[in-house]
This record gives sequence, structure tokens and C-alpha cells, in this order.
Amino acid sequence: MMLRLGYDIQFQIPSPVAMVALLNVHPSRVGDLRAPDELRVEPGTYIESFIDSFGNRCTRFVAQQGTLHLSNSTLLQDSGFADPVKYDARELPVQELPHQILRYLLNSRYCEVDRFASIATELFGAVAPGWGRVQAICDWVHARVNFGYQYARPTKTALDVFAERFGVCRDFQHLAVTLCRALHIPARYASGYLGDIGVPVAPSPMDFSAWFEVYLDDRWWTFDARHNCPRFGRVLMATGRDASDVAMTTSFGMANLTQFTVVSEEVTQESAFQANQS
Amino acid sequence: MMLRLGYDIQFQIPSPVAMVALLNVHPSRVGDLRAPDELRVEPGTYIESFIDSFGNRCTRFVAQQGTLHLSNSTLLQDSGFADPVKYDARELPVQELPHQILRYLLNSRYCEVDRFASIATELFGAVAPGWGRVQAICDWVHARVNFGYQYARPTKTALDVFAERFGVCRDFQHLAVTLCRALHIPARYASGYLGDIGVPVAPSPMDFSAWFEVYLDDRWWTFDARHNCPRFGRVLMATGRDASDVAMTTSFGMANLTQFTVVSEEVTQESAFQANQS
Amino acid sequence: MMLRLGYDIQFQIPSPVAMVALLNVHPSRVGDLRAPDELRVEPGTYIESFIDSFGNRCTRFVAQQGTLHLSNSTLLQDSGFADPVKYDARELPVQELPHQILRYLLNSRYCEVDRFASIATELFGAVAPGWGRVQAICDWVHARVNFGYQYARPTKTALDVFAERFGVCRDFQHLAVTLCRALHIPARYASGYLGDIGVPVAPSPMDFSAWFEVYLDDRWWTFDARHNCPRFGRVLMATGRDASDVAMTTSFGMANLTQFTVVSEEVTQESAFQANQS
Amino acid sequence: MMLRLGYDIQFQIPSPVAMVALLNVHPSRVGDLRAPDELRVEPGTYIESFIDSFGNRCTRFVAQQGTLHLSNSTLLQDSGFADPVKYDARELPVQELPHQILRYLLNSRYCEVDRFASIATELFGAVAPGWGRVQAICDWVHARVNFGYQYARPTKTALDVFAERFGVCRDFQHLAVTLCRALHIPARYASGYLGDIGVPVAPSPMDFSAWFEVYLDDRWWTFDARHNCPRFGRVLMATGRDASDVAMTTSFGMANLTQFTVVSEEVTQESAFQANQS
Repeated sequence: MMLRLGYDIQFQIPSPVAMVALLNVHPSRVGDLRAPDELRVEPGTYIESFIDSFGNRCTRFVAQQGTLHLSNSTLLQDSGFADPVKYDARELPVQELPHQILRYLLNSRYCEVDRFASIATELFGAVAPGWGRVQAICDWVHARVNFGYQYARPTKTALDVFAERFGVCRDFQHLAVTLCRALHIPARYASGYLGDIGVPVAPSPMDFSAWFEVYLDDRWWTFDARHNCPRFGRVLMATGRDASDVAMTTSFGMANLTQFTVVSEEVTQESAFQANQS
Repeated sequence: MMLRLGYDIQFQIPSPVAMVALLNVHPSRVGDLRAPDELRVEPGTYIESFIDSFGNRCTRFVAQQGTLHLSNSTLLQDSGFADPVKYDARELPVQELPHQILRYLLNSRYCEVDRFASIATELFGAVAPGWGRVQAICDWVHARVNFGYQYARPTKTALDVFAERFGVCRDFQHLAVTLCRALHIPARYASGYLGDIGVPVAPSPMDFSAWFEVYLDDRWWTFDARHNCPRFGRVLMATGRDASDVAMTTSFGMANLTQFTVVSEEVTQESAFQANQS
Repeated sequence: MMLRLGYDIQFQIPSPVAMVALLNVHPSRVGDLRAPDELRVEPGTYIESFIDSFGNRCTRFVAQQGTLHLSNSTLLQDSGFADPVKYDARELPVQELPHQILRYLLNSRYCEVDRFASIATELFGAVAPGWGRVQAICDWVHARVNFGYQYARPTKTALDVFAERFGVCRDFQHLAVTLCRALHIPARYASGYLGDIGVPVAPSPMDFSAWFEVYLDDRWWTFDARHNCPRFGRVLMATGRDASDVAMTTSFGMANLTQFTVVSEEVTQESAFQANQS
Repeated sequence: MMLRLGYDIQFQIPSPVAMVALLNVHPSRVGDLRAPDELRVEPGTYIESFIDSFGNRCTRFVAQQGTLHLSNSTLLQDSGFADPVKYDARELPVQELPHQILRYLLNSRYCEVDRFASIATELFGAVAPGWGRVQAICDWVHARVNFGYQYARPTKTALDVFAERFGVCRDFQHLAVTLCRALHIPARYASGYLGDIGVPVAPSPMDFSAWFEVYLDDRWWTFDARHNCPRFGRVLMATGRDASDVAMTTSFGMANLTQFTVVSEEVTQESAFQANQS
């Protein structure tokens, strides 16, 4: 399956501001690209790329005063399979986890693991460990939290979500991530493209999406407490402890978002390359 | 100056539990060691060491049921100089910061940078950037927060400290770190040994200590909003975004601290080696 | 000046639910009414009125399943004067306050006075007590908090507003009320009708409005940190410690607001009575 | 049963400060007094008494600079019965509650009812309404929260207690009160004398105690999530929405508590009056 991926984002910049963008596909998916995955920054400016401590590809630049335009359009060859599922995947005891996985058990800004020890144990302590327990967490969050764009706020934490039961994508995932970590299951926040492929009714306008990953057996697996069903055409951009680590753009000063469109759709091979050449 | 460093820590362990300890001197100080810096774990168990994503030396093991005893006694050659001070050290604009420094501008569990943007700007936005501004932050926190062991609690955040004005070491540093980051000054939490060397009146029973580091010019500098004066014999153990990253011990299950002593004192070379051989 | 006041509010009620409404003009303004101030509840149901511990007129009823319609249309003779101002009004020392005023110095749900002692003192402790200090608080809140309906959320407290600097009417007033109380100035939350009379550009669609009252000299005075200028045609409905005490409607179960219009406008005497008879 | 009740409290007062004390037995128990219940304030100062909006007897005065001494010693004739229990007491539907009870369903500073709607329903929504449900709440709080004086802090809310699971008397009651209100059961915070009468092992040094009251059938009933068993010799001093309303002393300025003893014990009639005359 061929996916067209891209975005068109505009900011008004009142005065020059340093920015970091996580707007490329994740290094783990670079081999699937069928066209350059190039973040265009207009007006042109000096750009640097680097890999952060979580393994994400980041872009740095100084946005000039005026309108900033970030855009991209690329093609990616996807397996066409839904998110993999392995019902008998095993939770590892902490002592068996690889060193570099341990940090995904700890607290982060929006995931107050230290405040969820009792809550998580009461809700899921008696559920058999493994894939099924993570799925039970997803089911619970999916059923108990109500989605609504009007409930978004940048400072909302997992405990806020637990108490208020309203939120957007990221809120669902923060709560699920925190419940996992409180049970000593490594979990990390993920963001990327997620189109409506295979979804009978498109749920919402195109946007980047958030989901989360859980370490079971010997690898990370995709879970999504917001949609809570295996999806097609999910393309990872970044992972981190929570949304603070993987913001699409982080501005060190004022930058007012004025326009935002994301494209993530299946295309035929022919139309893909015709469009891309135009 | 020769320092004797060490600790004796006991836990009661109700059932086997995986632990991670950050109880060695920081890799940057290993060259100064004059005796092995060996974390003894009793009863003996399989131990692994690794370096975490912040560059700290970590030790992992499974503590068995019963009394767990962690101890160490080592010697370290110290310059004998106080914390370095450079009044004209410069704040770097974000675009000049090395890539790997950027993460110390972001949110973390106890440092809600996103909630301090206005507060930090109102208090310190008009102060000239550089060493003096960081010192102004230290002065402010030192003057406005009251120290007391009875005010310790594991979930206290920088905003809690800002509102309540009471805390222990870590609370002072969390508030100062957060104010720095909110002004786009990279800051990280640090922990280690800090004896009473050169202090007319010993302020408190021996304990590990927390301070923080700020990136100015082209390096990290030590600041301490708790003591707020250059100190002698500070020996770094770990740095991270906040206390959650550099807990002396993190237990993935129950572990009840029952005894805790820390040694950090100047010794003569002779007594040092005599004692160490005994 | 004659004011037409009223509202038309609809809820969808999934199952019968007890409600309390504070939707009448305050007892202190009853003498100014020129038409009945009658809350109509449709479909008809048994209604009881009572005065709560703050002196507000409250209405209780059980809303039946289906569409609930609350409406009112009345006339009120207003002085036509703007909110009174007395620049030399005095803050009373706590010991001179009447007994029944003391409770307006304490904590409430959205006004965490206990967390603002230092913040309030640092910002306003050096300002001369009296009217000017309360005005300084209003000026500060008005200048530092940004208005936007998208920032409304029912659980936002004064400290949230102080950190986030975004909010609606009630958030501005909660922050100002809390700063006053933290300085031992009695302050209470107020709600009512506030039209656009005398306002060059109508700032927003008609809604009920929130303001606050401060006890200086020997009486309560109106302040409004949101608009921060004396206004015409303000008609008090209720006062309390904070928004929790004076919600327009409190439902003890599900009640989904589906329509909401408020009328608060100046009318000529003739048109007033013509309209009212039709 | 005759009870001797009293206290001896000292503050250091750095500069004159207005205070309000709730240090008398509740008006509902005045008929049981067998000696004057007189709050002595030393050094002597002008004292006023009044009844607050919750029906508590309050005392106001200005404490002078220096040592403030508050003391009392009285006798009270008690029934000798334990807290009454009525297993079939009924929760009233909100519409049947007396007007003046409704306010005990609302939010207050330490009881964020608005954040507990889902939590309370999930935990206790399926429990049969009535006495048994309130008891189930007490049982849950009693079992899940750990007592310890070191966990006291003045700003801790019910949600903090729910997350952290540590606290003192007041924290247990705040959580239980909030869970009740979230289920539309009127609940209020109570404080007073509670000796160790009939308790095999005295649990703690003498102190004032907090409990809570719930409105079932047509009256308020005593519950105590901290001790969670009917007790003897409980003597009410004050009730309110939460601890903020019924603080033993509220100081509008600095007042440092330096000594604190409470007496609440059973005495024989003879010894009672002998002692009282001496």
C-alpha cells in the first residue's frame, strides 16, 4: 500500500524565534520512503538535523519574523497490514528489561507515575500480566474518557484526565501510558500520521495523531487508547516519554499557529508518482 | 584535598524487588577516585552496571526478601577549590546550543516549564541575561523558600514550591531549574555528596545533596539554590531532568528505608589509607 | 434607565434530575423590578424557592426527562449610574470586620487562599491598602490574563489561572478574589446580568457575567477584573465564595445544555411595557 | 459519663494579629456542660463571640505580640453511648433534602466534588444507597489510606489523598466527604474532642480530632473514616464544608504554634468537681 504523507503548517512569528520540529518520519521507517521526506521551511533559513536522545529525527532552525510556512509531501510504502497484535506477548519482569528501556518506567511531565501506584493496582493489579492487561487498560481508558477537541489544553496531566474524563488523543494516551508504567510495564508516547484507511466513517478532520507503545516480549508494540482497534497506515514520527518530548514543533518564544493541514491517505502507485512529479 | 565518601543504607524488603541505584560517583569524576567506588549489595546478588541516557552510572539488581544493605566507602582526590564562578558567562541563544543540550529546556515531572512562562518572565525577564540572571534566580529561591525536612514529599512540583514556599534541597533546585528553563536557559538537576567542608556551622545531618547545573558559555556550571554560596568538596553522582531521573534508588515494588547514613568528609592522606585498609 | 432582562435556556435531560437554579435578580434589587421576575420551567413541575446562606434567591425543582426549558423576561428600573467608585474607601483591619464578613477571607474551591499568601504579598504587599490596592489587583489580572471562551473549564482554580494566564470571566474574578483574600481583604464572587450599555463595541455574545465584590469601609463594592472599568446596567443575581456557590444551575445528575441566550438591554419605557404585555 | 475537656495552646506572635478561634463545644452540646466552657486568652484582650453561618460558636480577638496562651478546662455530661448507628437509614433524593442541607453537596477547598464524579460512581455507584453505602465509603478510605502525622500538609485536597494514600485525620475525612457529595449524599466536616475511651490501645497522643457527618433520613449522623468504628465520648466543636471552615484557630497574619495539649478523658463525678474547684 502506498501512502501519501504531508502537511502544510503556518505560523505568524512576531520576532525571530528558535524552533525544533519533529516533522519527519521516524528513522525506523526511512527504508519505506519512496520519495524524499523533506521538511520545507519558508522563508528559507539555515536548517540543522539531529537525532535526539529518544532516537527521533529533529530539525532546528530560527524562524524569521512574519509568516512561517512548514510543509512536506512524501510517499511511503506500507505493508498494508494493521497494527500487529500478539495476544500472548509477555510482560517482562523489570529485571529482564534491557537497560535502555528502564527510563520508560519513570515519571514525566504529563505522566505522574508516582501518583498512580494505588489507582493502577486497584484497577488492574488483579488482571493477568501481558498483552491482555495492556489491552484492559486501553479498553478502560477508551470507555471512560470522552473525546472532544474542546477539552484540549497543553498542561493536562494523566491525573487530570483520570479525574475529568475528557480529552483529545494525547490525553487518552497519557493516561494509558501512566497506568502501564505504574504497573511497571514500559510505555512510551508516540506520534505520527494516521489516516482513515479502513475506517467506515472518518472520525475527524485530518490531524497528526498520538498513540503509545508498550514493551512486551522483546520489542515495542503499538496501542491506541483513543481508537482502541488495530489501524492501517499508521506511520511513526517520534516517540518519547510524553507529549512534551515529541511536540511537532517547540518554539522558544512566540509562534502563533494560523493554519494546519495534514495529509495521510492511500494512493495508487501511478497517481502517487504523477502527483509527486508535478 | 582527600575526601572520604560513602554511605550505609538499609531497606526492609517484603518480597523480591528489582531496583536501580545511582550510588556511584559520576563518570566525570572517576579519574579522581583513589580507592574503588564499589556499591556493596548484601545479601549478595547478581549486579549489572550501565550508563543511562543522561550519562550516569547505574546499578541494577534484584533485592531479596529481608534486610537489604547498600554500602560503599571510597576516597576521592578533590581540587580543594570551591564551585567555580564566572560572572561574565553568557546565556546562549537557543539556536547556539548543542543539540544534546536542548532537552534540558523541556518539561519534566517536577519542573512544569509550561506553567512558568509568565511567572519567570515577570520575575526575571528584565534581568540582564547570563550568569547574573541565574544567580538572581538562586537568590530569589534561596530567600523565598524555607527549608525544613518536614516539608519533604515525593510528589511536590516546582509550582507547589512556588506556592507553598517550604521544602527540602530538591524542592529548591526544582524551582530554580524550572525558572531557568522557562527563560530558555538549559538547566538540569544534580545530586551527589556534599560535606560540610568550610562551613562554620554544619547545617544538618549528613545526607546526599541536590543542586543544579546551568549551561552557560560552552559548559555546565554548578548552582545551588539551597545553600546559595560556592561550596567545597561537592562530588557529583548523577544529573537528569529532575529528581525522578536521578533517584538514589528506584524500587519497582515495595522497599522500606530503615537506615540511612552518608559520609562525606575531608581526611588526611594517611588516615585515609589507613582507614581504607582496615 | 429601564432594562429588559431575561434568558432562554434549554437542557436535554436523559432522566429525571434535581436542579437548583440561581436565575432571579438578587433580593437586594427586587425593589427595582417593574415586571415579575419569574423563572418559567417547562414542562411544568413543582417548584420551591428559598434563600441560601449567602442571601441568594434559589429555585429548586425536578426536571423531567426530555427537553427542559428555563426562561424569564422581566423589567428593571436602574439608576443609570455606572458602578460606584470611591477612591478613598478604606480596607478594614480584620478585627473591625463584621462577623458575617469573615467567611469571605477563607479558602474556597476555586480560590486557594492558602496557596497565595506569598504570591499576593510579593505582588501587592507594598501597595497602599484601600481602594487603590484592590484596583491594582484588578489592573494586574486584567493585563496579565488573556480572555478566550476556548479556555473555559469547570475545574480551573485561581492558581491555574495565575500559571496559565488564559480564561473566561469567572477565571479573572477567581484570581482577583483570591489575591484580595490572601491580603485579608474580604472578597466574594458575583454573577448577574451585564449588557453592553455604553460600550462602544460589544465585546461578545450576550451571556451572564461574573464580577466580584470587595468589602471596603462599611459595604461591598463592585469590581470587575475582566472588563476593569465601571459599567452601566449591571444587575446582581447572586454572590458567594466562588463560582461553585452561585452556578446558574446545579444539576444533581445529567443535564446537557443545548441552548442558551441571555437578554440584557436598555429599553424605552414604552417599548418595555408594550413588549411585556404581548 | 462525665468528661473532662480542655486544652492548652501556645503561640508566639511576632506582631499583633487578628484571630478567630473555634474552641468551644458546639451549641448543640451546651446543655450537657457541667462547668463553664470558657476560652481563656492570655494576655487578656477584648474578646467577641459570634455564631458563624454553619452554626458554630466562634471567638474573635487580637493577639498581642509575644506569647499567646489559649486554654480551657470544662466538664461535660455525656450519654456514655457510642456513636449512634442506624443501618437502615435512608439516603434522601436531592429533591427531598431540606434547603439548608443543599450546600453540603457542593465543592469546597479541600473537597473537589467536581473532579470525583466518575471516580465515586465507579467505586460506589453500584452499592445500594443508604447507610451501607456511606459505610462502604468509610471502609474503603480506612483501608486504602495510611495514617501518619508526617503526611500532614495544609494544602492537601481529597484528590491528593486519593492519589497519595497517606494522611492524617482530616485527610481521611476530606476524601470520604468528597466521595459522598459526588454521589449526592450531603456530607460535612466535623471537629471536636475525641478521647481514647473504650479503646484498648490509645492510638496517638491527645489531639483534637476530625470526623464527618452525613445526612440520612432526617438528620446528621457521625462517621469517621479514620477510626472507622463507633466511638465513645466524641464531643462536637464545629462543622463546616471542610477543614478550612472549622480551623481551631485562623490567624490573619503570623502566629507560630509552639505548644499544644488537649485533654479529653472520662472522670468520676467526684474527681471532676474536686479538680474543677482547685
